[in-house]
Amino acid sequence: MAAFQSPKGTRDFYPDQMALRRHVENIWRKASVDCGFDEIEGPTFEHLSLFTAKSGPGIVSELFSFRRAGGSDDYALRPEFTPTLARMAAARAGTLSVPTKWFAIPLHFRAERPQRGRLREFVQWTVDLLGSQGAAADCEVIACAVLALERLGLKPTDVRFRMAHRGASAAVLTAAGVADEHIGDAFELLDRRDKLPPEEFQSRAVKLGLDDSAQKRFAAIAGTKLPVSASMNEVAASLGVGADVLAPLAELSEKLCALGLSDWCQWDFGIVRGLAYYTGTVFEVHECAGRDRAIAGGGRYDGLVELFGGPKMPAIGFGMGDVVLGLVLADKGLLPHDGSQLLPRPDVFLISDGSDLAERELPQLLMRIRRAGMHARHSWKSTKNIGKLLSEAGKHRARIALIVGAELAEGAVVIKDLENGGQRIVPLADAVETLSAMSSAMMRA
Amino acid sequence: MAAFQSPKGTRDFYPDQMALRRHVENIWRKASVDCGFDEIEGPTFEHLSLFTAKSGPGIVSELFSFRRAGGSDDYALRPEFTPTLARMAAARAGTLSVPTKWFAIPLHFRAERPQRGRLREFVQWTVDLLGSQGAAADCEVIACAVLALERLGLKPTDVRFRMAHRGASAAVLTAAGVADEHIGDAFELLDRRDKLPPEEFQSRAVKLGLDDSAQKRFAAIAGTKLPVSASMNEVAASLGVGADVLAPLAELSEKLCALGLSDWCQWDFGIVRGLAYYTGTVFEVHECAGRDRAIAGGGRYDGLVELFGGPKMPAIGFGMGDVVLGLVLADKGLLPHDGSQLLPRPDVFLISDGSDLAERELPQLLMRIRRAGMHARHSWKSTKNIGKLLSEAGKHRARIALIVGAELAEGAVVIKDLENGGQRIVPLADAVETLSAMSSAMMRA
Repeated sequence: MAAFQSPKGTRDFYPDQMALRRHVENIWRKASVDCGFDEIEGPTFEHLSLFTAKSGPGIVSELFSFRRAGGSDDYALRPEFTPTLARMAAARAGTLSVPTKWFAIPLHFRAERPQRGRLREFVQWTVDLLGSQGAAADCEVIACAVLALERLGLKPTDVRFRMAHRGASAAVLTAAGVADEHIGDAFELLDRRDKLPPEEFQSRAVKLGLDDSAQKRFAAIAGTKLPVSASMNEVAASLGVGADVLAPLAELSEKLCALGLSDWCQWDFGIVRGLAYYTGTVFEVHECAGRDRAIAGGGRYDGLVELFGGPKMPAIGFGMGDVVLGLVLADKGLLPHDGSQLLPRPDVFLISDGSDLAERELPQLLMRIRRAGMHARHSWKSTKNIGKLLSEAGKHRARIALIVGAELAEGAVVIKDLENGGQRIVPLADAVETLSAMSSAMMRA
Repeated sequence: MAAFQSPKGTRDFYPDQMALRRHVENIWRKASVDCGFDEIEGPTFEHLSLFTAKSGPGIVSELFSFRRAGGSDDYALRPEFTPTLARMAAARAGTLSVPTKWFAIPLHFRAERPQRGRLREFVQWTVDLLGSQGAAADCEVIACAVLALERLGLKPTDVRFRMAHRGASAAVLTAAGVADEHIGDAFELLDRRDKLPPEEFQSRAVKLGLDDSAQKRFAAIAGTKLPVSASMNEVAASLGVGADVLAPLAELSEKLCALGLSDWCQWDFGIVRGLAYYTGTVFEVHECAGRDRAIAGGGRYDGLVELFGGPKMPAIGFGMGDVVLGLVLADKGLLPHDGSQLLPRPDVFLISDGSDLAERELPQLLMRIRRAGMHARHSWKSTKNIGKLLSEAGKHRARIALIVGAELAEGAVVIKDLENGGQRIVPLADAVETLSAMSSAMMRA
């Protein structure tokens, strides 16, 4: 019987859970469209080499990979969307508009041990802007993320964009005593510092040529958090560098403030984003108290499209998964406990009094109401007790009841507004039009 | 470079192609909701044994199957949704409403050779009604399929539901001389008759105990097509049986006619639906001229939930994939050649005249307009020529242009209706509200 359960780390979405998932996805999609991004999608599995080309062979153990029986190609379920997006951009680079603004809301897969905030199958929203360099492009994708988070009910006091810039961080590390050839290793140490035992941190720091005082400075940099509205002189002073090396941050700060997004963002020089392909701005969205993993993460990857055979094409984007976000929203009471409240309500519940005339009329009326674009249900019970059927209509959360009863002999039916209790008798021929007008008005209200 | 292409039999959906896919999916979803079905979803991959339990070990070669590195469970990408749905129904059988009406629009996978109408990854709409026996339930799912096909622009002269009933067909085969113990094999022969060489067909028929005259009768049954509105006496006479054995068809005929769906449907005694688990009504939707594979297929599977550890639970459902449907719609000119026509149009295109004042105002206005739920874009070009920018707004298919120019010195902006060319000057403070009212009115028009 164990085989007839869902695989470990995956989810069954019953209607109430699906309604919650669609609620989040619809907010993601609307925010993307409002910000002028176009939806795309790619294959659920890709050639394994697409992922190893980007992330190295180390990623294979985190993937679900396979071959077709009798086939020779190695495939893997996608763990992230960026390689697919970069492959697609490379293939059509000559005909894409500039900038190209794409979003996607596909399923993703990781073969890791499931734990809080991490499943083996999850939905992830990705938003990318290709073909434009500079802070305006960075801010366009950040604004889109903020718009979605706001619509989900989150505030700048709930979640924070922790931001850095690879170029500025490299200059800060150089000033702290890291030699040029060790910058990559220093980023890795910065990224993994909280996961390493103190001894290993120290031995790695020594390998980077950092003496005791440089290690202290390194730790201070890693812990530096400042408002993005702070003056660059202030930021530079905190980090012990000249303001000139922070030019990329100055441009970002100006644009974020101009858009009114500075409350959502802070500089965090501990942010690296482990993935080696980021080239400029990097950011993660975290719950302010720092619980759980990142809600979202992204950054600039100006070299990736070229890596996949395309031209040089600057790009910035982020991914936001549904699992950590769902935990944060639930913690803050921003999702209904019962997702079934989010299910679409029936416009009309059809009731027959059981007479032959009514029973003959009901199927045709049902089709006409549905053809007119209304959500219509009817009872599957054998009772013809109109009181019981009205109560069933209420359980379905229907807005209107259409009662086909004794009035049918005079060519009329009863329409009952289940929200205010009012009812009226209308000619059968006008029933669908009347229902349509009522339900449109109720939807707008 | 070959590795950086999408895997064989899968698709990249660029924005225009994605718009076409969403167009079809949205019609599927709306039809499902209008007919009172609730959306569900399950894992993209399941335990391999879920699929072999239902379809036998023969299905393995048609699946993409895999293990996690270091894991011992065999998984497979789902080739169909019914096993997942039956597993989910079995797990919650005690708490489900009666009937349970579910739909899903997930991705599916087949490891077969890609060909016209068949890909390795495809979208499939499934609609199922569980917990109710009889023709009313069968017709509820058929009505839902018809509603979607109508909204896609198809007519009864374009596509046809070819229907049969396993019980009635078994009685007809018995009357034609098939012994009870050979009914299963006779169904298989009926199902595969067009794929077998004549000699093999004949040798199998002989094994079923059919002599020459019985073989002719068998072929005549396989070729029998009649309107579902035909009288049962007429149907019985065509098949050489008594009308009493066709009782399930009589009930179906009555309900289909009552719903006004009889034009869409015909009896076709050659329809079996190879899958062994069907128990009653079976149907396939085909293009009327018979080109291409089935657009949809389904039937009653009253034993499947029990097979997966649930109680006895009658069930009827169908699946409709996007690939054959897309070919049929394209053949009939029912999809725009250029899917980009289906992309959401921007409500507002923001234009600045390049003055410092305008450039400062633009980002905040952009955020305010988007926060108000409008789709807003702006130019990424360096030009500040308002004529060129208006022409860019047109290329984006924007409905309205908001021009932030010289009027800003007096605290005003220009709003230009790009559909009728009219323009007016409004106070900056009223701009978002004015745009909102205009775009709502334009959307309704």
